[in-house]
Amino acid sequence: MTEGTDSATDDRTGVWLVGARGNVATMSIVGARAIARGVTETTGMVTEREPVASLELPPIDGFVFAGHDIEPEPLVAQAERQRDRNGVPDDETLAAVRDDLAAIDDRIEVGTAVNCGAAVSEGSEYLDERLAVRDVVEQIRDDYETFRDHHDLERLVVVNVASTEPELAAPERYDSRDALERAIDDDDRELPASVLYAYAAIDAGHPFVNFTPSTANALGGLEELAAATGVPHMGRDAKTGETLVKSALAPMFAGRNLRVLSWEGHNILGNKDGLVLEDEENAAGKLASKGDVLDSILPDIEHNRVRIDYTPSLADWKTAWDYIHFEGFLETEMKMQFTWEGSDSALAAPLVLDLVRLIAHADDHGDGGLQPQLASFFKAPLGVDEHDFSQQLERLYAYADRHA
Amino acid sequence: MTEGTDSATDDRTGVWLVGARGNVATMSIVGARAIARGVTETTGMVTEREPVASLELPPIDGFVFAGHDIEPEPLVAQAERQRDRNGVPDDETLAAVRDDLAAIDDRIEVGTAVNCGAAVSEGSEYLDERLAVRDVVEQIRDDYETFRDHHDLERLVVVNVASTEPELAAPERYDSRDALERAIDDDDRELPASVLYAYAAIDAGHPFVNFTPSTANALGGLEELAAATGVPHMGRDAKTGETLVKSALAPMFAGRNLRVLSWEGHNILGNKDGLVLEDEENAAGKLASKGDVLDSILPDIEHNRVRIDYTPSLADWKTAWDYIHFEGFLETEMKMQFTWEGSDSALAAPLVLDLVRLIAHADDHGDGGLQPQLASFFKAPLGVDEHDFSQQLERLYAYADRHA
Amino acid sequence: MTEGTDSATDDRTGVWLVGARGNVATMSIVGARAIARGVTETTGMVTEREPVASLELPPIDGFVFAGHDIEPEPLVAQAERQRDRNGVPDDETLAAVRDDLAAIDDRIEVGTAVNCGAAVSEGSEYLDERLAVRDVVEQIRDDYETFRDHHDLERLVVVNVASTEPELAAPERYDSRDALERAIDDDDRELPASVLYAYAAIDAGHPFVNFTPSTANALGGLEELAAATGVPHMGRDAKTGETLVKSALAPMFAGRNLRVLSWEGHNILGNKDGLVLEDEENAAGKLASKGDVLDSILPDIEHNRVRIDYTPSLADWKTAWDYIHFEGFLETEMKMQFTWEGSDSALAAPLVLDLVRLIAHADDHGDGGLQPQLASFFKAPLGVDEHDFSQQLERLYAYADRHA
Amino acid sequence: MTEGTDSATDDRTGVWLVGARGNVATMSIVGARAIARGVTETTGMVTEREPVASLELPPIDGFVFAGHDIEPEPLVAQAERQRDRNGVPDDETLAAVRDDLAAIDDRIEVGTAVNCGAAVSEGSEYLDERLAVRDVVEQIRDDYETFRDHHDLERLVVVNVASTEPELAAPERYDSRDALERAIDDDDRELPASVLYAYAAIDAGHPFVNFTPSTANALGGLEELAAATGVPHMGRDAKTGETLVKSALAPMFAGRNLRVLSWEGHNILGNKDGLVLEDEENAAGKLASKGDVLDSILPDIEHNRVRIDYTPSLADWKTAWDYIHFEGFLETEMKMQFTWEGSDSALAAPLVLDLVRLIAHADDHGDGGLQPQLASFFKAPLGVDEHDFSQQLERLYAYADRHA
Repeated sequence: MTEGTDSATDDRTGVWLVGARGNVATMSIVGARAIARGVTETTGMVTEREPVASLELPPIDGFVFAGHDIEPEPLVAQAERQRDRNGVPDDETLAAVRDDLAAIDDRIEVGTAVNCGAAVSEGSEYLDERLAVRDVVEQIRDDYETFRDHHDLERLVVVNVASTEPELAAPERYDSRDALERAIDDDDRELPASVLYAYAAIDAGHPFVNFTPSTANALGGLEELAAATGVPHMGRDAKTGETLVKSALAPMFAGRNLRVLSWEGHNILGNKDGLVLEDEENAAGKLASKGDVLDSILPDIEHNRVRIDYTPSLADWKTAWDYIHFEGFLETEMKMQFTWEGSDSALAAPLVLDLVRLIAHADDHGDGGLQPQLASFFKAPLGVDEHDFSQQLERLYAYADRHA
Repeated sequence: MTEGTDSATDDRTGVWLVGARGNVATMSIVGARAIARGVTETTGMVTEREPVASLELPPIDGFVFAGHDIEPEPLVAQAERQRDRNGVPDDETLAAVRDDLAAIDDRIEVGTAVNCGAAVSEGSEYLDERLAVRDVVEQIRDDYETFRDHHDLERLVVVNVASTEPELAAPERYDSRDALERAIDDDDRELPASVLYAYAAIDAGHPFVNFTPSTANALGGLEELAAATGVPHMGRDAKTGETLVKSALAPMFAGRNLRVLSWEGHNILGNKDGLVLEDEENAAGKLASKGDVLDSILPDIEHNRVRIDYTPSLADWKTAWDYIHFEGFLETEMKMQFTWEGSDSALAAPLVLDLVRLIAHADDHGDGGLQPQLASFFKAPLGVDEHDFSQQLERLYAYADRHA
Repeated sequence: MTEGTDSATDDRTGVWLVGARGNVATMSIVGARAIARGVTETTGMVTEREPVASLELPPIDGFVFAGHDIEPEPLVAQAERQRDRNGVPDDETLAAVRDDLAAIDDRIEVGTAVNCGAAVSEGSEYLDERLAVRDVVEQIRDDYETFRDHHDLERLVVVNVASTEPELAAPERYDSRDALERAIDDDDRELPASVLYAYAAIDAGHPFVNFTPSTANALGGLEELAAATGVPHMGRDAKTGETLVKSALAPMFAGRNLRVLSWEGHNILGNKDGLVLEDEENAAGKLASKGDVLDSILPDIEHNRVRIDYTPSLADWKTAWDYIHFEGFLETEMKMQFTWEGSDSALAAPLVLDLVRLIAHADDHGDGGLQPQLASFFKAPLGVDEHDFSQQLERLYAYADRHA
Repeated sequence: MTEGTDSATDDRTGVWLVGARGNVATMSIVGARAIARGVTETTGMVTEREPVASLELPPIDGFVFAGHDIEPEPLVAQAERQRDRNGVPDDETLAAVRDDLAAIDDRIEVGTAVNCGAAVSEGSEYLDERLAVRDVVEQIRDDYETFRDHHDLERLVVVNVASTEPELAAPERYDSRDALERAIDDDDRELPASVLYAYAAIDAGHPFVNFTPSTANALGGLEELAAATGVPHMGRDAKTGETLVKSALAPMFAGRNLRVLSWEGHNILGNKDGLVLEDEENAAGKLASKGDVLDSILPDIEHNRVRIDYTPSLADWKTAWDYIHFEGFLETEMKMQFTWEGSDSALAAPLVLDLVRLIAHADDHGDGGLQPQLASFFKAPLGVDEHDFSQQLERLYAYADRHA
């Protein structure tokens, strides 16, 4: 039952991960293969729970992984480091999928890191050092197609799980397909890597998911292209921890007409994400999408701040303290606090698998463009103003009911 | 603009509070009169927020208060003690409503405390010491009607906000209207006070709300009676603090298919509620309705415990610590903790006002029997299995949309 | 370098553990052997830090373990369960000491469980089922001596790390050596197991440490015996988690003249200790020694409660939430909260090793009777009124300075 | 019994507060006068608790207050704002001392704000706008002397409780008395206000306390001057909240040989201190003294960060969340978290009164120079390396025992 070759199923889905050797990618691959090999359960996967589980979704054991990265250390070493630092995956699971990881690692190609910031690209080799923008795009696309052809895939889904880029200045200059394609042809060196991966995917007809706060498909030009070509795509910035809690809790304050005076959020984490976000440039985008959730649900909030700090000893354990100061009846001031201690990658990985299945489902059913039914997965769901987690889930359940 | 006599409005609603000198009643009355006098805002009231605010609801400044209690200390003294111990209401607010409180206090009658447990009734005088059950019911009913007649009220709503009674054993013996009425006639001394108040209200055609965990209208016999007579009623146990948070948070764990291994809830509070709940007999009902919320939303939860302890120095400040141990992808164990510090009465009071308005609205529109659109207000909503706060609110909003 | 036979050192210390297959014993043995084999550090050991480290203490790699238990499951299985449930010890450490554990397990004898409560003894076999009290004592003593003789030990230290017994009623009846010995001879079946172990040790001249809240050496009769025979002994109830924090924090409130209104402590844990303490009988002693710390440091405290609950999923992770409500200048009420998440056995084990070394040191230097310099290790230090952790440590440091 | 004129005592102590209309000064004055008038207790005062209470200390009701400020809003208004925003002082207390506040306010002179940063000085008038440095010093000194002469004071103590200044660059240039006095004569405009106040006090023979993180007396030149003239002085940065807790807790980790991997401290507060500290320039000094405590007690700490953020709604309530990640035996990683919710001024004010009494005591007994027995009051005690709160208190107690 080696992944990609003699899978138990014929329904093979190519999963191309941008940032294929990062924490989230590694955990996603380990998890998918552990499920395929029957050594773990599917806890944490939304697509394994009703009503979504009733959809006809691509099977996990048919996932064939590949991807881009500029990090040379192989997947097995990445997984071992995660085991040593975080205790996840455990020895047994790692042993069961070790050969799979080695096989998948052979399919990871060097990618681009243009405009990813020094915190990401320093010390690595990457495509854009030697190629023009258009050539980078062609190379990426070629990598996608070669993979697809070699593995007899039903479909190919591209997911960006790479480190957060610095925020793109003036993204409105790429608001039309024309403007974007002209920029690529003109070798516009301000286009960030995530946009190139997204463009290559959508232009080639592959569903695309942006799991990160980077720009990627959140450009007018790419929305136009996807709408025109009928390619499903979605993003931005997966909602895994503190923001997920916020999107469940804030509606409670709103629903009870309690006035939030201050909501302070302090996140500490020790993985590469944390290190990259220490760089203020890279943090800006992340903080924006985290902050928007509260502003949307609690329009009258008086003070809303989010901090992310790098605490090396925590490794992949993202810990958040939130302090909520609110006012109720008769001007009574009250408080709620919470702390959240989650393994960031273990929270993210099942959502990667869910999103691959759900965007593939949309593609299979001819639903192109943005996919609002996937809003619950994202901090800044493209094309969706609703940030209330419960309301977002309702959309997903309605979609499931429609297609079941 | 003295309450009850020369109110700014002609639309007068009688609000009969069982336990009219308790914390919740006092704060509700103070708040309503402070709103009427323009010295406080309506923060915390669900009926003052869209879409519910669009309904034609009885005006707050038309509320005329009265009620039963076995506690002799007058309302003004109650309010002063709350100010001194909790800081709510503040001096200014209290000064503005002091005369109103004194006027209302004159309308509070001695009630029954039958089967309320020693923690509640010790040292007080009450009706059932000298009257047969049927006579107690008649006296209560007579109190309702006298009040109604003297104040030219459009309607009278009865709300039970008295201290929690011990759980009623074998409530199924009162499962039919006949059985219940026979028990009253047979001077069945096991019927608790809350049932007598509820019976007297519903039988006389007054909408009834049970804000507490006591039995009251949660008897088959009373449901039958209310359905037959078309009287709206609802309950049980208002959802104000820790359980409210649970009902907003637990759906997040469910929605993401995260497995909750243990959910420990520890509540400490220092008001009379806390003192009464120190008595294990009285605590049983409360703990049951608190625990059910999680069991309903998270059917696979492995361990779910709620503790309530009396901590005198906290006065009306109810503080809860919840510890949630959950498992995600790849059997990763994670944790969330929260602490909630709320002024119990300040959280409860606006909901009392909301419920009066909403059940009066149902009555005005001929909706009798249980009112499932009010489920979001209760820990154990009668006739409703849904405990997800967001879903419960959806029902209220749908009701508002239907009637707007 | 197999433990007990060809140790690197000639200075061999016999460590007889009562409850030798329990969590604390297992972790102590695993840790000591891992230190001896060079696969772990000595973090958590007070005797490895200055100024105590300057004392001439028995070497850890010279510890030879043995003990009593009524639990038949062998040490290796105990250690494996701890690894699986708590992640401690890790695979590597366990592999390094597995053979040592097996060898030690052969030296564990069946003990007594008289008056340990049903929660402890149910389903096991034990000495007191078939022997008179005096015979049980003789058998225990015989076990000590046989072990000592077979392993060429410099000294033998007995440490009680067994599950907590129910509190002994009227302990003053054993307040003299005579009374105690008469009770043993008269087959007094109310004497609990811990007393018999302590008596057998002290009477035979072996230093004794009571790591638990059980009675053991906390009897006037045993103090008299130990004083007369010059045997060092100490106890009661090792201070490992929440109480340790209290004994460090409470002096801060005292030192700043802040008035503690309420101190609520809520402990949840999932190991056998937790299960035994679910039994109210067994919990009483534990709660008493936990509560005393605050009452001693903060004599004016108004409310002080400790709860211990069993939360199976936490395994050996003892989590505590403490809520401290205090009053400062101008009657300002303020709050501090803390949560503590510690692996109970990993906190306890190094202290077992410390205590063995330090009581052996006292014995080597002719210091008999109670050992007040060890007060910092205990929740209820015998013969010491000081509960301030910092002051207790000063006593230890003064002892170290005196002997260095 | 009006303060300063017909006090119950003849032993009158002048208390000159730099920043006399700030939060801490206001609360100190309110508290002292409330004590004098018998309407509050002395909770929070170290000098009212044994063994310090046994010293012959200047009576609180003999304190005569005056001071400098650049803030024009009078003391009564300051106190009212604190009551409204924080609930401290309460109405009753404020009423009792209102006249005293008005009388004291008349004795507050305009001061200097040189190099206090824009966050402090913007929009106010102050001495250094129109005077040379030497003239500013003379003016300050003249203010001290005029006050002393007019009120028949036994002694005058100067305490700096003004907002935190930006850190002084290259303080070593003022390391000798000569260098410092030369700079004053040369109109060196880089000398910050706090230094001028301290110089004027010490040069005139008045005991000086620096309650803030500003430079003040922490200059070699001033230490030389104070030692030469025998004037007692002490500082720096009163230890009132999170850092106090750290200095009580960190020794526990050290004492048990537990390795702290990360200690994250996040402070939020809403008073002027918070606003000033939003300015990164002003925050630097504060953060340095907060951070040093841990580095000193836990020399092997791997990661130690402190954040201070401005959260307007919290007013004077300083809330801190600390997350402590530590390693114990067998490399077990564990966690402790705490939150601290204190009214900053209510914690600080009693210490101001304590320090006035204790430094006056030193002066009365001829102890000049730095006063290490006062280390427990400060985050960065001048001339003292000991940061363990308990050890620091021991020094105070030893001083008390020596003088009792």
